[in-house]
Amino acid sequence: MEDKIWQGFLYDFYGELLNEHQREVYESYIIEDLSLSEIADEVSMSRQGVHDLIKRCNKKLQMYEGKLHLVDKFLHIRDDVSKINELAKEATEDNLSKICDISNDILEEL
Amino acid sequence: MEDKIWQGFLYDFYGELLNEHQREVYESYIIEDLSLSEIADEVSMSRQGVHDLIKRCNKKLQMYEGKLHLVDKFLHIRDDVSKINELAKEATEDNLSKICDISNDILEEL
Repeated sequence: MEDKIWQGFLYDFYGELLNEHQREVYESYIIEDLSLSEIADEVSMSRQGVHDLIKRCNKKLQMYEGKLHLVDKFLHIRDDVSKINELAKEATEDNLSKICDISNDILEEL
Repeated sequence: MEDKIWQGFLYDFYGELLNEHQREVYESYIIEDLSLSEIADEVSMSRQGVHDLIKRCNKKLQMYEGKLHLVDKFLHIRDDVSKINELAKEATEDNLSKICDISNDILEEL
């Protein structure tokens, strides 16, 4: 997975654990996709300051995922639910049996 | 939901964010279901000390849920997947259509 997409997932899950200033800068970087210099101008910080702050945020978000693994769990469930969604489009006994198995797997994991 | 069951969910999700000592005491309380006095004996603390520590842990875990809402989100998904699992046991067009709808709802929420 591309770095920025992964960081976006981490931010979706754990972003509320950053402080307001960190969130403002991190969102400009991850969601608005601004450059470090553009963010620096926007929040009146040096480019290096923005760079360091984003690095600290990445480290903090990654620390939460390292301990909790909730993004990983969620992506796994999303894949399984997508499979169920595809299987439900065609009414065969085999598909229903697969849906049963996949949903059992999800319930065991949750 | 009963307090202890809810606290157990919070611990499942965010327990790794407590320190080792907190986890040891909290697990004795939530998972082993020991009394405060029994835990106090086990970890050589006063009963009041154990009580305060558990209260602090509850507050910390609840703070994480208050910010992240991940237990709530996952419980919601679990209910939806249980419905899918039930529906998949009987092969009707209507059931497949419901499975499609529910799985779409989950994917939108994720």
